[in-house]
Amino acid sequence: MSKQFAVIGLGRFGGSVAHTLSEMGYEVLAIDQDPQRVQDFSQVVTHAVEADSTDENALKALGIRNFDVVVVSIGEDIQASIMTTLILKELGVKKIVVKARNDLHGKVLYKIGADKVVYPERDMGVRVVHHLISPNILDYIQLADGYSIVEISAGDFFAGKTLQELDIRARYGCNVMAIKSRDGKINIAPAAEDVIHKGDVLVVIGRNDNLKQLEENA
Amino acid sequence: MSKQFAVIGLGRFGGSVAHTLSEMGYEVLAIDQDPQRVQDFSQVVTHAVEADSTDENALKALGIRNFDVVVVSIGEDIQASIMTTLILKELGVKKIVVKARNDLHGKVLYKIGADKVVYPERDMGVRVVHHLISPNILDYIQLADGYSIVEISAGDFFAGKTLQELDIRARYGCNVMAIKSRDGKINIAPAAEDVIHKGDVLVVIGRNDNLKQLEENA
Ligand SMILES: Nc1ncnc2c1ncn2[C@@H]1O[C@H](COP(=O)(O)OP(=O)(O)OP(=O)(O)O)[C@@H](O)[C@H]1O
Ligand SMILES: Nc1ncnc2c1ncn2[C@@H]1O[C@H](COP(=O)(O)OP(=O)(O)OP(=O)(O)O)[C@@H](O)[C@H]1O
Ligand SMILES: [Ca+2]
Ligand SMILES: [Ca+2]
Ligand SMILES: [Ca+2]
Ligand SMILES: [Ca+2]
Repeated sequence: MSKQFAVIGLGRFGGSVAHTLSEMGYEVLAIDQDPQRVQDFSQVVTHAVEADSTDENALKALGIRNFDVVVVSIGEDIQASIMTTLILKELGVKKIVVKARNDLHGKVLYKIGADKVVYPERDMGVRVVHHLISPNILDYIQLADGYSIVEISAGDFFAGKTLQELDIRARYGCNVMAIKSRDGKINIAPAAEDVIHKGDVLVVIGRNDNLKQLEENA
Repeated sequence: MSKQFAVIGLGRFGGSVAHTLSEMGYEVLAIDQDPQRVQDFSQVVTHAVEADSTDENALKALGIRNFDVVVVSIGEDIQASIMTTLILKELGVKKIVVKARNDLHGKVLYKIGADKVVYPERDMGVRVVHHLISPNILDYIQLADGYSIVEISAGDFFAGKTLQELDIRARYGCNVMAIKSRDGKINIAPAAEDVIHKGDVLVVIGRNDNLKQLEENA
C-alpha cells in the first residue's frame, strides 16, 4: 500500500505540500482550524477536516497515529507548532516533518522529536541567489568536495559548434552529461559530433570554479 | 565589476537572499522600513538602510537605478509590493525579482514589469514532497521529457557490489555519472570495477520510471 500523509496547517507551504501530494496520487488528510481553508482544500485532497491540532483528542479521533508521515506547517503560532509536534510524537507518529520560522524554533522542534525541520523561505532565498548570480545556470545539484552538476543554457558562443569543437573537457575540465534541446528532447549520451544550438541546455558535471568559467562563456 | 544587488524587505525570504549574497562576497544594499530589521542586518550586508520603498524619492536618493538586480520581498502588504515594483520599473531598474503571495499577486507583478516572480513557500512545498516520497533521493534536477538526474543513497542491496555486478545500465536503463563516498570524496568518472559502499551517494541520470525502480531497490 502506498504511503499515507497528513498535513496540518494549510498556509502557502502546507497547502503546496498537500496539493502536490494529491496531484501525485497520494491520499492526504488535510487539517486546519480555519473552516475557510478546509473548504478550499475539500476538492483538492482525499479528506479535509476542521480541527485544532493542539487538541490531543481531536488528533486521536482522526487516527493520526496510522499515518506514515505528518507534515506540520503552522508558521506564525510557534507555540501551537511545538505543542502539535509534541502530541504527534507522543501518539507515536513515525515521521514528523515541521516547518520552522527561525533557528530557535527549529532547535526546539528537533529536541522534542521532529524528524525533519524545514525553513521554506530561507532555503528558497539561497536557491534564488544561485540563479541570480548565474543566470545561465537553470538548476543545480551541489555535490561534495566543491563539485556540482549544473544546467547551463547555451548562448551565442556555443551555438552551431560541436562538442568536439568546444572541447569542454580539455578546456574547462567539465563533462557534458546530457543535452536538452529546445523542443524538449533529451540526449543522455552526447557524442563528439553533436551540434549545440542556441537555447539548448547542457547538463554538466565538474568543479565549481570550472563550471563558473564555463557558464560565463556559454 | 561584480554585480550590485539591492534587497527590499528583510523578512525570512529577503533576509536569506541578502545574507546569502553577502556571504558569497557580493555588495548588497538592504532596505526595510522597520528600524529593528535594519539594525539586525547592519553587520550582515554592505549597507542597511531604513526606508519606505513605496516612497519614490527615498528610492531615488538611494541611487536604486544603478543596481543590477533588485529583489522585492514584501509578502504581507501586497499593495506595497506592487507599488514598489512599479516605482523600480519606472526608475529603470534592469532586473526586478519579486516575491508573491499568490497567483493573482504574481500576475499583477508580471504585468507591471517584474522580470521574475517567486513563490518561496509553494516552491519549497513541491521540493519537500519530492524528498518525502523518495527518501533515498537526496537531490534532483528534473530534465525534460520525463528524465531526471537524482542523487540516490546506497542501502544494503548495493553495498559491497561493483557497478559491473549491479549492472545498472542494463537492468534499470540508468547511467551512474558520479559516486560520492561517505568521506566527501567524489568520483566523476565511475568505472565498472568501482565498489559501492553503504551510504555512498550515486548520481544517476535516467527516465523517471526507471529511476524510481532503482531508488526502490537501492
Ligand atoms: N492549532 C492549529 N490547528 C490547526 N491549524 C492551525 C493551528 N494553528 C494554525 N493553523 C493553521 O495553519 C495555517 C498556516 O499558519 P500560519 O499562517 O501561521 O503560517 P505561515 O507561516 O503564514 O504559513 P505560510 O508562510 O506557509 O503561508 C493557517 O491556515 C492556520 O489556520
Ligand atoms: N513599504 C515597505 N518598505 C520597506 N520595507 C517594507 C515595506 N513593507 C514591508 N516591509 C518589510 O518587508 C519585510 C517582510 O515583509 P512581510 O513580513 O510582509 O513578509 P512575509 O511574507 O512575512 O515574509 P517571509 O515569509 O519571507 O518572512 C518586513 O521586514 C517589513 O518591515
Ligand atoms: Ca500567514
Ligand atoms: Ca536541484
Ligand atoms: Ca511576516
Ligand atoms: Ca511565510
